[in-house]
Parts: sequence; C-alpha cells; structure tokens
Amino acid sequence: MSDKHSEAFIVPGFRASGVSAGIKAGGALDLALIFSEVPAAAAGVFTTNCFKAAPVLLDMERIASGAAQAILANSGNANAATGPQGQRNARAMAKAMADRLKIDEKLVLVASTGVIGHQLPIEKIVAAADKLAAGLRAEGISEAEEAIMTTDRFPKMSLRKGRIGGREITLAGIAKGAGMIEPAMATLLCFVMTDAAIEGNVLNGCLRKAVEGTLNSITVDGCMSTNDTVLVLANGLAGNRTIRKGSGSLVLFREMLAGVLSDLGRAMVRDGEGATKIVEIVVSEARSTAEAKKVAYAIANSNLVKAAFFGRDPNWGRIISAAGSLGIPLPVQDVELFFEGVPLFRHGQGVKGREKELRKIMARDEIQVQLRLKRGERSWRILASDLTHEYVTINAHYHT
Amino acid sequence: MSDKHSEAFIVPGFRASGVSAGIKAGGALDLALIFSEVPAAAAGVFTTNCFKAAPVLLDMERIASGAAQAILANSGNANAATGPQGQRNARAMAKAMADRLKIDEKLVLVASTGVIGHQLPIEKIVAAADKLAAGLRAEGISEAEEAIMTTDRFPKMSLRKGRIGGREITLAGIAKGAGMIEPAMATLLCFVMTDAAIEGNVLNGCLRKAVEGTLNSITVDGCMSTNDTVLVLANGLAGNRTIRKGSGSLVLFREMLAGVLSDLGRAMVRDGEGATKIVEIVVSEARSTAEAKKVAYAIANSNLVKAAFFGRDPNWGRIISAAGSLGIPLPVQDVELFFEGVPLFRHGQGVKGREKELRKIMARDEIQVQLRLKRGERSWRILASDLTHEYVTINAHYHT
Repeated sequence: MSDKHSEAFIVPGFRASGVSAGIKAGGALDLALIFSEVPAAAAGVFTTNCFKAAPVLLDMERIASGAAQAILANSGNANAATGPQGQRNARAMAKAMADRLKIDEKLVLVASTGVIGHQLPIEKIVAAADKLAAGLRAEGISEAEEAIMTTDRFPKMSLRKGRIGGREITLAGIAKGAGMIEPAMATLLCFVMTDAAIEGNVLNGCLRKAVEGTLNSITVDGCMSTNDTVLVLANGLAGNRTIRKGSGSLVLFREMLAGVLSDLGRAMVRDGEGATKIVEIVVSEARSTAEAKKVAYAIANSNLVKAAFFGRDPNWGRIISAAGSLGIPLPVQDVELFFEGVPLFRHGQGVKGREKELRKIMARDEIQVQLRLKRGERSWRILASDLTHEYVTINAHYHT
Repeated sequence: MSDKHSEAFIVPGFRASGVSAGIKAGGALDLALIFSEVPAAAAGVFTTNCFKAAPVLLDMERIASGAAQAILANSGNANAATGPQGQRNARAMAKAMADRLKIDEKLVLVASTGVIGHQLPIEKIVAAADKLAAGLRAEGISEAEEAIMTTDRFPKMSLRKGRIGGREITLAGIAKGAGMIEPAMATLLCFVMTDAAIEGNVLNGCLRKAVEGTLNSITVDGCMSTNDTVLVLANGLAGNRTIRKGSGSLVLFREMLAGVLSDLGRAMVRDGEGATKIVEIVVSEARSTAEAKKVAYAIANSNLVKAAFFGRDPNWGRIISAAGSLGIPLPVQDVELFFEGVPLFRHGQGVKGREKELRKIMARDEIQVQLRLKRGERSWRILASDLTHEYVTINAHYHT
C-alpha cells in the first residue's frame, strides 16, 4: 500500500487493524478487524452454496437484526466443511473480540478465507484479540485489507465521497478474491464502511441491487464458493437525515455503493487467477434480462473463448458456438458480433478484411465483446478474465 | 495404425478409403469415404447448437428418409458459419461423390471438421472423388479414420461381433474428436457401420438410447460444437431376421452399439485436449436422473476440480462446492464423497487419516469419484478429462 493511498483511506467513525495471529506461516498479516465507534446499520449478501462455511452461517443469523458494530476476518483458514466444531469456533472468535471491544457479541460479524476442511486455530485467534483491538486506528483499513488477502496479487480498495442532504458522506470498501472463487474456495470477501445514516432494511435493499450489476457480474472461472461474503456497515455519523424508503438521496447512495462495488469487482477480475486480460461481454437485444445473462455467462465461462483471448486470437466461432449451445432459438442470420465495435460475424457468416484492426484490439488489456441477439430489448454486461497457463498452475498446485 | 488392427477391422459389405485432397497442408489424409455395397438403414444424432454447420443441416434433411449408402467426410475445414455458399458446397461434395459411385445423391451423407468460417475448397474435393472411389477397400476403414483426424493424438476405432438370430453380426465405429469440442469447434464425428439387418426407425431409437449413456456422457471442456455428428449405417448383409420393434435381439444389438460408442467416447476423453487423466464421476442417490446428471456435469466441468486432478490434489472441497452451487437443496450432513471407495467427506466435514491411500489414487490414470447425494435412487455417470497447461496451449494457439 502506498502511504498516499493509506492517508486518504478513512471513513469517519470507523477504525481498523490487521495483525499476524500465526494462522498463516511466515508472519504474514492474517487477522483483520473493522470497528465502528457506534452500532451501525448492517446488511449482507452471502454465497448461495449449500455447503456454507461456518462464519457465513453465523453472519446470516446475526445480520437479520440489521445491526452490527465489528467485522472480524481471518485469512489462512476458511472454516468451511468443519462441522459443529467449526460453528463453535466462529462463535468463539466473535465472542473473544466482543469481550475485548466491550460490545454485545451479537454485533460482531465474522469471515474466514483460506484452506478448507481444517479447524481454525481458535486459540491463536483469541490470543491475538488484544493486539488487534489495541491496534485499531482510522488509517488501519489498509492493514485490514492486507490481512484478508490470500493469493491476491494486489490489495483491492475503493473510496467514494458524495453529498447527501448537505452532508459529506464517505463510502469505502475493501475486498479480497481472485474472481468468483479462489483456490480452496476461500474466495470473495468484501467489506464496505460508510458514515451515512440509512435504515437497515433500506441498506439491505440497496446492497442487493448494487451487488447485482457489480459483484454478481464478474467471473474468473464460473465456480461458486462456500465463503462468499459481502458486508456493509453504515454508522450514521455523517449526520445526514436518515435515508429511508422513498428518500430522494436513496438513488445517490445506491450509486455510490454500486460505484465502490464496481471498482472492487473490476479489481478482482484484473487480479483473476493468472489473468492477463479483462474481457467485457455485453449481450444485447435479448428477449429478457435472464436470457442476456445466460448467454453472457456461457461466453464468459467457455474455456475455449477464454483461452482464445489469452492467445490473442479473435476466434469468433467459439463465441457464437457458446451462445448457440443453450437451447435459446437464436436467429442465426441476424445475430451480430463485434469486438470494440468491429464486426466479426453477421448474416450467418464471418466478416472478412478486418484482420489488421482485430490484431490491434486483441493485444489490449481490456476488450469489449458485444453480441446482439436481435430477439428483444434486454441486455446484460459482465466482466471476465482469460484462461492462462498460470491459472492451471495456481489451481493444480495449491494443495489442500 | 498397426497392420494387426487394420486386418481385423472389416465389416461385411462396407468399403472405405482415405486420401489427401490438399485441404490440409503437407499432404496429410483429409478426405474419407465410407461406402456400403447396398443401400443401408441409416440414423443420425447431431449437435443441438443453433449455429449448425452446413453438412449437419444437409444430413438432418437426408437422414429423415432412414436410408443412406455413403458417408463423405473431410477434415481441415468445418464448413461452419459459411452461409448459403457453404450449403451449396455441402450438396456439391455429396453430388460429386454420388456421380462417381453411381448412386442417388440423396444416399450420400457428408461431414466436415476443421477451421470454421472459411469456404470449403470444393474444387479440390470434387477433383479427389475419383481417387477416393478407386481406393475403396474392405480394409480401408483405418485410412478413413486417419483422414478425419484433426488434433487427435491417436485413431479411435472399435469393433464388436455378436450373434443375432443365428448370424454373426459385426458392428464397428470410428470417431474423431478430443472431447465434446476441439479447437475451431471441429469436434466430434463418429461413424458406425454394421451388417445387421434392422429397420430404420428402430435403428434410430437404438442410436438415441445408446448415445445417451456414452457419447452424451463425456466432457473435456463442456463446450458444444457446431459440427457434432454421429451416423450409423446398417446394410443388412449379415442376413439376420430384420430387427424390429419388439424383437428379442433388439436389446443385444443396442448393447453392441452402446459398447462401440462407449469405447469411442472413452478414447475421446483419453485423447481430450491436453488430458493426462480420465475422471469417472458417478453421482448417485439423486432424486432424478436429471438431477444426478446436472450435479455430475457441474463437477466434471469445474475448472478448479479439473485442475486439482491434474495437480494430483484430492481437493474434495472443490467437488462439494461445485455440487452445492446448483440450487439443489443437498442434505449437507448426509452427502458422502469417495475416491475409488475411499471416503473423503461425510457428516458435513472432511475425513482424516486417509492421505496415504489418496496419494496413490491421485497418481492413477483413471480415477473414480463417487458422490452420494442421499436424496433418492437415481444416478448418472460421466467421464471427464483434467485441465492442464497443454489444454491452454492448444486452445490459445490454434488460430482461426
């Protein structure tokens, strides 16, 4: 983290810290705490996987109250597939932190990321609680971020400021994850802090809506984790009139939130395991949003498409083939495909003579692919990474 | 091909040949002909992709009659996404062959495999028709196989003999393809010849049933091609009483057919692009066959699972996570996972102490994975390849 980045990265009323508790080998930071000076409105979105990790199950129970004051997260161990002992450990880490912070343990949310199927070294986490609490500071968010990283190549942080009801509002998020999933399914964790005053149920609705077009529109490998967790705490210390259902400021707040989540989502694809490119896939003129999304994901998760982007090959055949494989009756003669506005396929066949332009486009870091289905008016956009040797190396050699 | 193999590979009443027509560079065989001395009952199964290649569209039209006498197939060019010209070319190659063979052109089926989006060099194919017809011989099936190979590392041929109604029946198949899909979507072609006498519509039903548990239960990368074609010709020269609906011999014939298709399917997974292993995934105790199949494919097509097998890592977390991501409410505490009978996950957590056995299992060429869902009585079995550096290399660097 650059000092410049750290200095600016403060949300009023929030303090954070990151320490090494010895969960990871080698003294790397592995335990993070985010703390709000006052109880905050809270909302969360979690993995829909049946095999939910213990911290996910605990958070789902606690977030129902709509309030929280602290997030305690560890890397190095996912506390997933750990049975009843894992659930006791998730509660125990929250309890230990609540005791040090002198707050109700129900206001502590937890998250874990790392290897699966091993019990947490709970005594190490409990032992580190003092140091973690003592280390809390306004500028500590970057340490917290560092402490939740696993195979991430760079930290992922985003901050936005805006005015709501005459008050300056700060909204900041940190995330870890190299796509929808990481080795050992440790995957996406995302924590957002804001000093905005907003009702808990309204915050919840905002989060669900904001996640849809951002964190739910990225893919590295199409796999879903057992630990995916997105949490937002809003402590209200900005002193704005509380954002409620129907408030004029609701749209602005939601846009700020979506902006932060979009930044973090893009960073996760950029950091996708082994990724060399971001491919933005826009499927338009679909009959429904669900149809557009289905086609977009089929393209984004096709290994053949992803490998072609890695190889800088404008292999449009693989894209139309992926789109055509879903049982959706596409009008073959009408479908059109473009890379950065350059047509590759229309009237049922390839477009010749654009090879030179395409060669330049394929060398870019980010490439927009647009597929027009000519069936309706709905569209969907997702960001995907390419498929590389490095992806295989990372995932073949990360041992359980 | 070994001579030993070629010698035995004869089906009464069928002749075949393979020549170099100059479609591929370097003089490799690229044009294949299979010819039955008499018109044969015929059935076909084709890709369900919207973007069907021209030869697929032509065959679908012609196979409706239930009869055919010849199959003409080229490699080096898929005749896919080639518009009306492509359709004219598919007809023209069939017509040229029919003229040389002096048979009705409607009895000639065609297939193409190779690069997509380029027009066939139809004049080269027409020019090679004489040589192809002149080269027909009973032992020519291995040349025909060689002529349809693209990135295949080895030929795929299977032959079975059986007795039906007191007569010896021969059933033989050849196939090309490195999984469900190949670079440039050239993919699976499979041609089966038999001297059995069987009614066309009964043959069609047999084929559909036999394909389901064999060629439709393999995956390399989960991608579906525009050219997938399976054709069966049954010329009746064995002189058995014609197999009809309700014939006692129908089951035996279907089993022979499924046996040949199973051999060829297994060979395709073994030859899957870059594959080092065959992973047999058996999902049992599902509520329905569709449910078992859905879970099996989710596991088989998970890049994380496939990369773990390449890395010889018994990463059971990735398998349960893939199974858990489908919205099927699995009983987390009851689900059980085994590799070659060794338990890895049960009672909601990993099974300890089997690491030594698992290390041996993971080093094998073929590994059986069994997931018991504990929801019902249905099961499904599929064969999958692993995901390797070589897969990425092949698919990143095969340029359009």
